[in-house]
Amino acid sequence: MTAAQLDAQDELAPFRDRFVIDDPDLIYLDGNSLGRMPKAAREVLKNEAEAGWGGRLVRGWSSWYGLPERIGAKIARIIGAEADEVIVSDSTTVNLYKLVVGALRLEPWRSNVVTDDLNFPSDLYAISSAVGTDGSVSVVMSPDKMTTSAEDIEAGLDPHTALLTLSHTSFKSAFVHDMTAITTLSHEHGAPVLWDLSHSVGAVPVDLKAAGADLAVGCTYKYLNGGPGSPAFLFVKRELQEELESPIWGWFGQRNAFSFDLEYEPREGVKKFLVGTPPVLSLACIEPGVDMVLEAGMSRIRSKSVRQTEFLIELWEERLEPLGVSLNSPRDSARRGSHISFGHPEALRIDKALIEEMNVVPDFRAPDNIRFGVSPLYTSFAEIEEGVARFEKVIKERIFEKFDAAAPAVT
Amino acid sequence: MTAAQLDAQDELAPFRDRFVIDDPDLIYLDGNSLGRMPKAAREVLKNEAEAGWGGRLVRGWSSWYGLPERIGAKIARIIGAEADEVIVSDSTTVNLYKLVVGALRLEPWRSNVVTDDLNFPSDLYAISSAVGTDGSVSVVMSPDKMTTSAEDIEAGLDPHTALLTLSHTSFKSAFVHDMTAITTLSHEHGAPVLWDLSHSVGAVPVDLKAAGADLAVGCTYKYLNGGPGSPAFLFVKRELQEELESPIWGWFGQRNAFSFDLEYEPREGVKKFLVGTPPVLSLACIEPGVDMVLEAGMSRIRSKSVRQTEFLIELWEERLEPLGVSLNSPRDSARRGSHISFGHPEALRIDKALIEEMNVVPDFRAPDNIRFGVSPLYTSFAEIEEGVARFEKVIKERIFEKFDAAAPAVT
Repeated sequence: MTAAQLDAQDELAPFRDRFVIDDPDLIYLDGNSLGRMPKAAREVLKNEAEAGWGGRLVRGWSSWYGLPERIGAKIARIIGAEADEVIVSDSTTVNLYKLVVGALRLEPWRSNVVTDDLNFPSDLYAISSAVGTDGSVSVVMSPDKMTTSAEDIEAGLDPHTALLTLSHTSFKSAFVHDMTAITTLSHEHGAPVLWDLSHSVGAVPVDLKAAGADLAVGCTYKYLNGGPGSPAFLFVKRELQEELESPIWGWFGQRNAFSFDLEYEPREGVKKFLVGTPPVLSLACIEPGVDMVLEAGMSRIRSKSVRQTEFLIELWEERLEPLGVSLNSPRDSARRGSHISFGHPEALRIDKALIEEMNVVPDFRAPDNIRFGVSPLYTSFAEIEEGVARFEKVIKERIFEKFDAAAPAVT
Repeated sequence: MTAAQLDAQDELAPFRDRFVIDDPDLIYLDGNSLGRMPKAAREVLKNEAEAGWGGRLVRGWSSWYGLPERIGAKIARIIGAEADEVIVSDSTTVNLYKLVVGALRLEPWRSNVVTDDLNFPSDLYAISSAVGTDGSVSVVMSPDKMTTSAEDIEAGLDPHTALLTLSHTSFKSAFVHDMTAITTLSHEHGAPVLWDLSHSVGAVPVDLKAAGADLAVGCTYKYLNGGPGSPAFLFVKRELQEELESPIWGWFGQRNAFSFDLEYEPREGVKKFLVGTPPVLSLACIEPGVDMVLEAGMSRIRSKSVRQTEFLIELWEERLEPLGVSLNSPRDSARRGSHISFGHPEALRIDKALIEEMNVVPDFRAPDNIRFGVSPLYTSFAEIEEGVARFEKVIKERIFEKFDAAAPAVT
């Protein structure tokens, strides 16, 4: 089927009109890094900035104060959690730090944190800092730099494992871990599991409850379209909420913040993981994107995402593979998220040319990866096809040309 | 002089027009909690939201990435610091946590953190959590619940003191510590000092360098008018930047974030205290308010602030003291910030009536305090006079009336 036919059949196609799209020629394939702006976010900003901050001023807190819970409860429905298990707070990295330190204090004789090298580097940094000098980190190395199996992970687990933490969908290859299998394995070794859902939430179905997951964090600015650097979320399953303590106490996690008690008494449940005053304008903008994901439904989003990444892979086989572009993501869609990594020795130059000369925005991941992200709520099949066409054109006209031009000087 | 005369003589008066003021009848005296919205923030939001997020999308990071440094460098000029000593990041509480933990690791045999009970409760919570079970916190109690002297503080210092941390201006009484004297004393005991500048920055002159201060944090949503929950700043003096480590590592504090190295290598200087992706919309809105403070200049702002709090105290003496309202802030303007605390047994009811019936917004601080905050860039003398008039009216017409009405049932 042609891209036009696929778009005509796409029941999610109308969502595209609900995003700000100023430049119809722009092929935006980086929604896995920063999602597009929902038009409804304009109204939210107008309301919270002009009427709220500008007009109601400090009285705005009567509604702002509940935002971390309200938006958290909506995100919970996307990831298979209960409303009182998710809260929006801080950045993904700070949330990860809080939960890793909390988990390390559960059973002090367990002091090793296990992860893999597919995990996002900022997660690795946060884990290392959370572990400090008292504990240790074991990093399972991916045998193919693209996937790690449950068996690979299990080999890293032992009686000293305090926590296993992984990115559900890998930022580079888009490999998706088997959440249920790995969580079960880790529990057999007595260690809770913390999932980073940043590259999954809003694109790849997640059911934390069904998987028996203990903890999770995730960002809201990718497939949830919450805006640049919008605050992150964290999940703590009910059974752990009483036992798990936050290492950072602040007044938003305090039971009666406005009684200004000198002694800290944590709020019930997941709310004790709130810390300081949240950045309201960035926080409020998360809600319209979350609402759209709920309206579209994760099964329709996932189904379109798979059709689109399959379509993209078909185009790659036909037009890019012959030009020396490799596929650095799993072929099996069941183990793949919503972006595709392509490898090419000249990836950095290709990425630059795509952005600067071709009006295509993918992203580059060192040393030789170009990611094409599909965001089903607004990416069209036509856009994917045009993105591949321009990719092909860049290699044929820019890269080969420059190789040729450079050749005499080199030889 | 009348309020009208004082306003006529006020050279900062024109700044008021540069803020969003929709309701001219509203007497807003809570700029010490949430500052008004600069009109220029509208342009920033339009630019960063519509053109940035909506249009440039992920390419917006080419300018957003430098915001924490750029705005930090401007705040530095307000607080007597060098451009490379201040960064905007996270919330005040998270920043405090980072610096307290960092300070505790400097000399491990020093494990006690000293503060006073005038400090903001969220600071006390953050300090307690940062200290954990390995260290301890000593809280110097204010003898009059309004001030603590350098001598009071010194009594808390000993060879185990790892850090002294205080709010420069107290959130409740507006008492201002003598930064130079106290920093000097603490250094004599070998302990660095961390100042929370939240209720000072943009209202009370601060010269960190002159005082020899080591560390500082502060919020940007009060007198800097950065917007609800806008990110906070932190200061680390150059001499400590190499030695002091952040306990929370993330990719914004990583030397080459986009090389995605598995190993953490901190960025130079204060930038290693950045953690995760900052909330851009809230972050960008800080700049217009900071620019206005720089344009007005701290000496003119301070001078107007003192004239206005003196004017407010005169009105209190004349019209509120006879009605049983006490002054819970220092009389000496040299030791007082830009808000005034009033005490009354019925403070909560008065505050409610002022907000709901009188269109005055002060704030209530348990158990019996009402704060009137003066924000010199937009507060007028006429507004202060009208605020006091409505305060008087509430006590005379609402509180006394209700006392009388209740009387028969009580006796």
